[in-house]
Amino acid sequence: MGKLLEKIKGPQDLKSLTEPELEALAKEIRELLLQTVSQTGGHLAPNLGVVELTLALHAVFDSPRDQIVWDVGHQAYVHKMVTGRWNRFETLRQYNGLSGFPKPEESIHDVFGTGHSSTSISAAVGLAKARDLKGEKHKVIAVIGDGSMTGGMAFEALNHLGQLQTDLIVVLNDNEMSISKNVGALSRYLTRLKLSPRLRRIKAEVEDMLHRIPRVGKVTVQYLRKLEDALNYLVIPGMLFEDLGITYVGPIDGHNITDLKESFTHVKDLNKPVLVHVLTVKGKGYPLAEINPQKFHGTGPFHVSTGRKADTSKTVTYTEVVGKTLVNLGKQDQRIIAVTAAMADGTGLLEFAKQIPERFIDVGIAEEHAVTMAAGLAKKGFRPVVCIYSTFLQRAYDQILHDVCLQKLPVLFLLDRAGLVGPDGPTHHGVFDLSYLRHIPNLTIMAPKDEAELKDMIYTALHHDGPVAIRYPKRDGMGTRFDTPYQQLTIGRGETVRIGEKVALIAIGSMVRTALEAARCLETQGISCTVVNARFVKPLDEALLYQLAATHDHLITIEENAAAGGFGSAVLEYLNGRDLPKLSVKILGIPDQFIPHGSNDQLLRRCGLDAEGIVEAVLGLDLPLTCMSARI
Amino acid sequence: MGKLLEKIKGPQDLKSLTEPELEALAKEIRELLLQTVSQTGGHLAPNLGVVELTLALHAVFDSPRDQIVWDVGHQAYVHKMVTGRWNRFETLRQYNGLSGFPKPEESIHDVFGTGHSSTSISAAVGLAKARDLKGEKHKVIAVIGDGSMTGGMAFEALNHLGQLQTDLIVVLNDNEMSISKNVGALSRYLTRLKLSPRLRRIKAEVEDMLHRIPRVGKVTVQYLRKLEDALNYLVIPGMLFEDLGITYVGPIDGHNITDLKESFTHVKDLNKPVLVHVLTVKGKGYPLAEINPQKFHGTGPFHVSTGRKADTSKTVTYTEVVGKTLVNLGKQDQRIIAVTAAMADGTGLLEFAKQIPERFIDVGIAEEHAVTMAAGLAKKGFRPVVCIYSTFLQRAYDQILHDVCLQKLPVLFLLDRAGLVGPDGPTHHGVFDLSYLRHIPNLTIMAPKDEAELKDMIYTALHHDGPVAIRYPKRDGMGTRFDTPYQQLTIGRGETVRIGEKVALIAIGSMVRTALEAARCLETQGISCTVVNARFVKPLDEALLYQLAATHDHLITIEENAAAGGFGSAVLEYLNGRDLPKLSVKILGIPDQFIPHGSNDQLLRRCGLDAEGIVEAVLGLDLPLTCMSARI
Repeated sequence: MGKLLEKIKGPQDLKSLTEPELEALAKEIRELLLQTVSQTGGHLAPNLGVVELTLALHAVFDSPRDQIVWDVGHQAYVHKMVTGRWNRFETLRQYNGLSGFPKPEESIHDVFGTGHSSTSISAAVGLAKARDLKGEKHKVIAVIGDGSMTGGMAFEALNHLGQLQTDLIVVLNDNEMSISKNVGALSRYLTRLKLSPRLRRIKAEVEDMLHRIPRVGKVTVQYLRKLEDALNYLVIPGMLFEDLGITYVGPIDGHNITDLKESFTHVKDLNKPVLVHVLTVKGKGYPLAEINPQKFHGTGPFHVSTGRKADTSKTVTYTEVVGKTLVNLGKQDQRIIAVTAAMADGTGLLEFAKQIPERFIDVGIAEEHAVTMAAGLAKKGFRPVVCIYSTFLQRAYDQILHDVCLQKLPVLFLLDRAGLVGPDGPTHHGVFDLSYLRHIPNLTIMAPKDEAELKDMIYTALHHDGPVAIRYPKRDGMGTRFDTPYQQLTIGRGETVRIGEKVALIAIGSMVRTALEAARCLETQGISCTVVNARFVKPLDEALLYQLAATHDHLITIEENAAAGGFGSAVLEYLNGRDLPKLSVKILGIPDQFIPHGSNDQLLRRCGLDAEGIVEAVLGLDLPLTCMSARI
Repeated sequence: MGKLLEKIKGPQDLKSLTEPELEALAKEIRELLLQTVSQTGGHLAPNLGVVELTLALHAVFDSPRDQIVWDVGHQAYVHKMVTGRWNRFETLRQYNGLSGFPKPEESIHDVFGTGHSSTSISAAVGLAKARDLKGEKHKVIAVIGDGSMTGGMAFEALNHLGQLQTDLIVVLNDNEMSISKNVGALSRYLTRLKLSPRLRRIKAEVEDMLHRIPRVGKVTVQYLRKLEDALNYLVIPGMLFEDLGITYVGPIDGHNITDLKESFTHVKDLNKPVLVHVLTVKGKGYPLAEINPQKFHGTGPFHVSTGRKADTSKTVTYTEVVGKTLVNLGKQDQRIIAVTAAMADGTGLLEFAKQIPERFIDVGIAEEHAVTMAAGLAKKGFRPVVCIYSTFLQRAYDQILHDVCLQKLPVLFLLDRAGLVGPDGPTHHGVFDLSYLRHIPNLTIMAPKDEAELKDMIYTALHHDGPVAIRYPKRDGMGTRFDTPYQQLTIGRGETVRIGEKVALIAIGSMVRTALEAARCLETQGISCTVVNARFVKPLDEALLYQLAATHDHLITIEENAAAGGFGSAVLEYLNGRDLPKLSVKILGIPDQFIPHGSNDQLLRRCGLDAEGIVEAVLGLDLPLTCMSARI
């Protein structure tokens, strides 16, 4: 902790600092960012990029009276430090520690909880409208990255704001980069805006010249008037925003505190919709991150001096399995197209993009468009593979149902980060997908137990004539080999991985491994469980379920998904009414609450979804004392 | 059927028609539209508005080789007529008849199924990208209304298209009206574009003038050069689109076939992204619809001469109950804000908008923004009531979960058109909401049995400190009075409406009435059923369920929602493991398939969700022969 930061109890303490002091503070903050995030992991580059921006905002505006909404919110670390939380900063992203995102429960300065992209302007419009209705006078500021700006709902909000014409400041934090390199016409447009000072000069000069021409004769007067008229239509920089009724200011150097403070002070008095275009450098001040902002966007612990990962696990992640499998299959099958929504790296598609660029599509942060566009591709015979994190695919629920499944189009959805995602917390846990997908007709839903099965499921899905979703966790795989020949799985057929008696553990996806661990542990206590890898949530392996039900007294379903409406719920629906009066069924899954952030182990424990939890569940059953031992 | 239309076997037959013949054909088509829709009900005004547009498109382009995607698709009737379906047009929207929306199963000319708003450009981008990859050369055209253009995903698609720079034509059908009067900055911008011919004239005149000024002396030459430079930045009409890399053409009179054909022929050869701005009049040719396009947007059967509804049912609809209740409560409680996404009329908010305009917000077709903006309002102490059809709220699933429920904000969602919606068919049935909402933590979900209960549920929700969703059907209410005093219901408490034995029918919402009918019918057969109005899907009335389970042999849950993951599924989850070995539970709901269009009676019958279906389900139970009679 530096000397200046120690004195910052709240944003009001920034107001008395001189600009050189603010610059010194920025330096201290960058050191604390590096020091902490290199230990805890987290979003480094986005925060390094907004140090001056955040200081200037809090120096000019009056939080919490003035309300600042951070889009996505992974760039709110600096905001947390200067709003009284610097002394808890080392607890970042840890169980019971500071969240990596704005959280109203944590501070009155976190006015709106965020985590998903492109929500800030909508929330800010709501806050501003509420302020107006109450006759209050404070400012509302939405800070949004250029990447988030491509999300449709940001445009919906701008369209509404332009009509409302109320006092709202949108700070466009333009680092030409969301998580992957930005794409889209808007991004190109923003780049052009950076050239706009030249335009403004031209306009000023022409105006000046026109005033100096002597107005002699009717024709000249007429002409000059027309010229002046025309000048009013001269492109103002930011015309795209101006056309929507939003005053454009910028571009401004986002690392110059003096310029930033000046601009914010200026727009503070405009009392109308303003967009302030601020240019920042992602990773600013940490050369390794400036060179490779993508790598340091969200990172695990790393060594500051080298930038190398601290965790040197050799296991391959499920994401990597996807990447390798798609490159491999994509080379064999011209119909395969990989689609990402600004997450080429996170979803493992970098290699595909490099090796098969013509069939790689990054649409930017635009999950809805990604899904319906994929439906269009499928309509013409292609096999689009839409790779989106489970939690972000929530945004395309309607498109999956209405544009893909209703038309039975063979789009493959790969849901990365399904299940608990640890330190990113409730806005990022992918624990609802089985529940929000299971009731959609025509959709096949799978989850693999290990790397090889994930590869085979992708292969199987690409040979299936209809929409398929495959979900897999953020965690490393089980360490199994997956360079084996492709195997086409039978749709709707599960697999018994361990044969026991009385109790059958029916696990899906990530929970198969945990169920096996539990079974091994129970074995030592004389209880022999059958363990089943369900593989399919839809269609269910009804024959297997029936047989399990008929030959066991207790079934326990286990899933890393909401227990409500998920896999276990589907099993119940099937078994109900099958005349199995003696059967008991227990559903293990995520309870009906939002799960906080923490390590995955802590969270799984909390939800009873570790081996211990399963063992406890089995021991809680009404079991006879003599249980046969297992026969692998 | 007119003489010309009879000769149109497919779009190729339009190519040989002269323009006067096309105009005559337009007249015949309008007559057929009026004649049919006045009988069948359907979307009248949108189709009357696109007669010439559709004829010109099909005369210039080569469907199905060239692919036309209709956004929403309620304006595709004319397209259906000229693509070989005029002779089945009288079966429109009827069971086994023509769908009211494009349907690939129905014709190769319906290239992509639509129904929800703002999907067409995304689908078209997919089709165009697929075409490019295949090395094909045909055209892809998306026809989208100015209302749909405010939906975020349309912008996402434009952003991607502007980058792709592929050959794609967006026809912007601008009638200054989606379903309600359009709102938003984009709409205002489009209006300004209509003035653009004046702009273009100015630019031409100034250019001309500049060329006539003699270039004498270094300074003059320099100035003139600068002026010419500046001229290049003169606002081009449609700069907003041009800024995104999309060539703007227009505006064009959408009822002048000659102009339309000329423009389409011109843009056909541009081979790049083009937006053609076409001005049409909704309801064109039927004066009553031109005057009141909103009334004739989607209509039931009516008398052509008077425009009056053929169906003169006196019963109040649930939508009307909502309208009256919100006006009434809104006057008493300054915190209530009504929010709609371009559906003020459909959701019953016209009167609220008129009487309490300052607390009425129409955001345009922008469900995602509507929900998150409401979260912002709630954050500052207001009680936003978001009124959106069940099927359209699917688009805001992520926002409900992430922006409202995670923050436990007291937003009230009123889901109109929940359940089967009859002739609008699978894109519009609201049969998934209980399944896509039930697993969201913190959310309370209710459904009323009648008008009075809907009113009380709204009242109750507005007194509850957390998010609430209330769903109710499109159909008329039960005819009960609802001008009774407000009653605050106990959250999570159901109601027994009939006491019987052995069998309990546990119905939710619209199915309570049907269950009572079934019970009355069963009574005559000597079977006495208990009937329960569940009221709450979340939280369940667990005490009541347990008591029912303990005192009956058979429970039957009944819901107008997908059986998978819905109300019955929740009941099963609760009852599972409660040590009720003799209990049988049966779930009646929508089967796992997309339900086609037809009359509600036909569809409910098909799903076994009419009284007859329930009676059959009860008779299928293993009942003893002696069943006590009911004691009301």
